[in-house]
Amino acid sequence: MPTLRDLGEIEVLRRLTADRSPAAGVALGPGDDAAVLDPSPGTELVATTDAFVEGAHYLPAWSAPERTGARLATANLSDLAAMAATPRWALLSIGARPESEVDALLALQRGAEDRLARFGAVVVGGNLTSVSGAEWASLTLLGEVPAGRYWTRSGARPGDLLAITGSPGRAGAGLALARRLEAGARSPEWQALLDAWLEPEPRLDLALDLASTGAVKAAMDVSDGVAQDLARLCEASGVGAEIATGEWPDDSELARASHSLGVPLEALRLGPSDDYELVLAVDPKRRAACEDVAARHGVALGFVGRFIEESGLSVRLAGGEVRALRPKGYDAFEGEG
Amino acid sequence: MPTLRDLGEIEVLRRLTADRSPAAGVALGPGDDAAVLDPSPGTELVATTDAFVEGAHYLPAWSAPERTGARLATANLSDLAAMAATPRWALLSIGARPESEVDALLALQRGAEDRLARFGAVVVGGNLTSVSGAEWASLTLLGEVPAGRYWTRSGARPGDLLAITGSPGRAGAGLALARRLEAGARSPEWQALLDAWLEPEPRLDLALDLASTGAVKAAMDVSDGVAQDLARLCEASGVGAEIATGEWPDDSELARASHSLGVPLEALRLGPSDDYELVLAVDPKRRAACEDVAARHGVALGFVGRFIEESGLSVRLAGGEVRALRPKGYDAFEGEG
Repeated sequence: MPTLRDLGEIEVLRRLTADRSPAAGVALGPGDDAAVLDPSPGTELVATTDAFVEGAHYLPAWSAPERTGARLATANLSDLAAMAATPRWALLSIGARPESEVDALLALQRGAEDRLARFGAVVVGGNLTSVSGAEWASLTLLGEVPAGRYWTRSGARPGDLLAITGSPGRAGAGLALARRLEAGARSPEWQALLDAWLEPEPRLDLALDLASTGAVKAAMDVSDGVAQDLARLCEASGVGAEIATGEWPDDSELARASHSLGVPLEALRLGPSDDYELVLAVDPKRRAACEDVAARHGVALGFVGRFIEESGLSVRLAGGEVRALRPKGYDAFEGEG
Repeated sequence: MPTLRDLGEIEVLRRLTADRSPAAGVALGPGDDAAVLDPSPGTELVATTDAFVEGAHYLPAWSAPERTGARLATANLSDLAAMAATPRWALLSIGARPESEVDALLALQRGAEDRLARFGAVVVGGNLTSVSGAEWASLTLLGEVPAGRYWTRSGARPGDLLAITGSPGRAGAGLALARRLEAGARSPEWQALLDAWLEPEPRLDLALDLASTGAVKAAMDVSDGVAQDLARLCEASGVGAEIATGEWPDDSELARASHSLGVPLEALRLGPSDDYELVLAVDPKRRAACEDVAARHGVALGFVGRFIEESGLSVRLAGGEVRALRPKGYDAFEGEG
């Protein structure tokens, strides 16, 4: 298996950019100084970027390059889902070690490309550079939204319903199980939670259909954990939120992980976890329309609380008691100690 | 001076995105899941991305963070110059060590932003992640070009004139001097060559005015070295090129570096060097129009050869002898040995 050093930069770039068929909206693809793209009339452009670093965002022992590429694409697609935007074009910037296998690099790109293609987007350019330590990949994704129709984090108002897709916390539980049990986490009983961590899906199709209902007033994707991400949405909107734990979706696998890990279920649900689910503020009058759309997509949509005037997050326990919640999510710069 | 770990991710992001005034064409800037941009009607979108890695693309001992940010912006601006596109929006993705100073990170971003602002572009989003080894920054730059009016690498035809801006090779000479002489390279006699390496300027304003002459048939920026980059342009265009060394611009500083380094002048001119100058294929009937534009901008524009039917690069020496040139540029994955 040749390494990047064996083949050299020019040949590696040739392989990375080979066999590209023309794509809609791409006047000029990879291979020139820049790509040339044809935006659709009447749309605004939506742009996001996300990077994964080896050892931090992905662990090679747990994730083959193709899967890592797909997950990086999902992280970016999920940002566009949170804006109700349709993905179009991506640029992929990679830092790779000279001694790495070219096939691993091609697989990472293929994983990203295949995932993007499922949602209508293509890689139109990129950059490849040499690193000596941890490898990394940074994807910039461009999408389109009908002018003025994008979602933001700042539109939630007191009285709006708090909705979540899926069952947040599963990805964080999968990662915690892998760390705790190591090879033991590969047992069938944990497969679904491991997949939530390693193979997350963006809620993009759902988001685009929810957007057409006009019911969603604010949105954000869950990339750090519900408590932290919801706190950000609340801050941007100038509101608070009260989570009703009794309304939270049942998840027997997450409950089992809570037991095995000795971590309270609430900490798994609300704590650090990159699920790429969506947190939504929903107009209470249009809740039923959202439920219909979610049912059509086969995606669980839980109405788990409401937005309130007083800032901050709180949790209403099943017995009616309310207590403040201190957001705790993933902090990239926090020490282990 | 607080480090990234001292402040934590949320506060660092707050500082990175603070005090942003509204910018033209930006409906929603940093701070949401994605940025929302308003493309100009009648234009195509031009997208490029370039990354710098500490120790490879920049040496902290030689380049303060602000300068590194400016140079990263130049690398991307130069790609848009080579497409005759007007810069608009950028996304900056950074991998930083937890123990790095927040001020250094802010300075790098400011350096990039100030350089981008000089050419009309703003940073609309980004990503910040933690690394344990070499730091890196990856910038994606979006620009606009009137529909169908972009330059490519593939438009050169036999008979077109080969033109270069400035005096390529100076950046590579500056880097070689820094490596060879270390602190000694900081003497005033090498300042201009060091600046060519550390403070390159994109030829953007010149490119946009040259585009309006209609004289330029193909373009590429010099980021690896003239021989390698010209070989790529020739391959994309399906032509060859003959360089007339007698026509190459005089550069007494480069000649002095050649002498001091013991490297032939031709190797400095044509070898590895990221000058961010432009290589152009010019319609011979419109040479004078290009010369007028270049003179107006105070930029040297040398007509240093011509494109020919036979593939490959050759050099015509002052005496008339022609010999083949083997392109040799920067290869990111090549070993030192």
